[in-house]
Amino acid sequence: MALVIIRQDGKIDLWKEALLAQQPGLEVYSYLENHPKDKIEMALVWKHPNGSLADYPNLKLIASSGAGVDFIFEDDTVPENLPITRVVDDMLAKDMSEHVLAVIFSHLKNLDRYRINQTKGIWKPMQYNRISDFTVGIMGLGALGKELATDLVKYGFKVQGWANSKKDIHGVSCFAGESGFSGFLETTQILVCLLPLTNATTGILNKELFKQLPKGAFVINVARGGHLVDEDLLEMLNNDHLSGAGLDVYHQEPLPMEHPFWNHEKIQMTPHYASVSDTSSVVPQILENYDRLQKGSPLLNEVVMDKGY
Amino acid sequence: MALVIIRQDGKIDLWKEALLAQQPGLEVYSYLENHPKDKIEMALVWKHPNGSLADYPNLKLIASSGAGVDFIFEDDTVPENLPITRVVDDMLAKDMSEHVLAVIFSHLKNLDRYRINQTKGIWKPMQYNRISDFTVGIMGLGALGKELATDLVKYGFKVQGWANSKKDIHGVSCFAGESGFSGFLETTQILVCLLPLTNATTGILNKELFKQLPKGAFVINVARGGHLVDEDLLEMLNNDHLSGAGLDVYHQEPLPMEHPFWNHEKIQMTPHYASVSDTSSVVPQILENYDRLQKGSPLLNEVVMDKGY
Repeated sequence: MALVIIRQDGKIDLWKEALLAQQPGLEVYSYLENHPKDKIEMALVWKHPNGSLADYPNLKLIASSGAGVDFIFEDDTVPENLPITRVVDDMLAKDMSEHVLAVIFSHLKNLDRYRINQTKGIWKPMQYNRISDFTVGIMGLGALGKELATDLVKYGFKVQGWANSKKDIHGVSCFAGESGFSGFLETTQILVCLLPLTNATTGILNKELFKQLPKGAFVINVARGGHLVDEDLLEMLNNDHLSGAGLDVYHQEPLPMEHPFWNHEKIQMTPHYASVSDTSSVVPQILENYDRLQKGSPLLNEVVMDKGY
Repeated sequence: MALVIIRQDGKIDLWKEALLAQQPGLEVYSYLENHPKDKIEMALVWKHPNGSLADYPNLKLIASSGAGVDFIFEDDTVPENLPITRVVDDMLAKDMSEHVLAVIFSHLKNLDRYRINQTKGIWKPMQYNRISDFTVGIMGLGALGKELATDLVKYGFKVQGWANSKKDIHGVSCFAGESGFSGFLETTQILVCLLPLTNATTGILNKELFKQLPKGAFVINVARGGHLVDEDLLEMLNNDHLSGAGLDVYHQEPLPMEHPFWNHEKIQMTPHYASVSDTSSVVPQILENYDRLQKGSPLLNEVVMDKGY
């Protein structure tokens, strides 16, 4: 029994070392080195090359090393009926919450617009907003959404959330399902998307949704590029229905240079780095599942296939 | 008995209306209109033209409509021995705290650098920092400093403060006086200046101070331009001892176009608008002092001349 790491971001050695530091003697390989494919029972993956999971005859578990698993579903050569796990990590949730707070504060106090003005040599005071002026609406109330909601309440924001099923979070007005969607959108001035990417949520950030937000609303997408219909966002920014957007994720990453987001002054871009799995924080749950796989015990954070997350 | 408003920022009518809304019938004049100078006993001022306070024979009180009074001391034609009051306003303190929080979060998450990269078409993830990584040190623990310190503790920052005299703020390590200054600086990674501008604090943000901060420290000045030695900041940014600065105040405002701060990528400028007196919030204490002046009662928020604030 052995474990293979498959990813293309140059971080294989980092993960290997983190695993071996916490479990010396673990049989772990990079997919790029020579390794006994028939011994591999678990693959630790992040945006693997399509097809690379197909040639492990004894593979029993695919473990995403991040919170998302959409890239696994997108590869139709992945063996069917294998369990998939994802990472649920307090630090990942805390980092995401802090990033979204930073983007919200920057919006409240016009910091991004001031930097643009500074590059042009423009001295122009702009009316600022206060925490108490805004209702933040969070789409998706899983581990990440719940952490953000809880933090925002603590800091004095009015907070509401929307999810598939009704949630109960202290201080947060929770809406659920299709019937609750309009009521949620009508009163959301800062919209944060933290949904998983599934068939049901692909393209959910579109013109019809934006029109239901009040004029001047601000949109933050830190989930997946596939949630957003890019042209719809541009249209609603350019006709001034939306006041701006903070994006961390894109349909294609890095975002191609010819994409209109790059030069848009109302779009504040970050390069998909809002929250990055911290290896030492995540490794224990990976090792725990490796152990459970050997024993045949129920896995941690297993993805429900019907839901897609 | 009457009141005159003296300021040059186009807001005289705004203040006049706010005063009259809360006390209809008040005898209040703009210094620009014809008015009976011998009836004026109180002047409500903000960056008045030098000399404009000299020709009121019966003036009994100069009231700053902001938290600062340094501009009054800088005009040596102001009649001596008159009491001076300033504004102490919860909303002013809360706004300042939120602005500083926004600048700190932007620094933690590299948002300003990402905007600069976006204008250049550069996709480059940068390691972010966490709230728990930083100790914020606040110089000045008056109404503004105390509000900020308390808020930062709530957000989970490690917070320390320095003031002339020892203060006691829950969760905040407080240093005092010259003897406590080095200890405060050595452990401050984000320095926030909220001191009043006096003879003792002019030029306090200088090379000697910056050298005592740990390498990579970030400096925020939201007090007065006179606190900062501009060339010293530039030198310490350019030799990489400091990682950046967020400035809201300058020696001259608007900052002249030829000033090197404009084009400096490590300096995040805002145009002296971190926190602006809200007329409706401030007017009651102005009217209260107008009333106390008539009755000869002790004034609210009177400046102690020896301290200069």
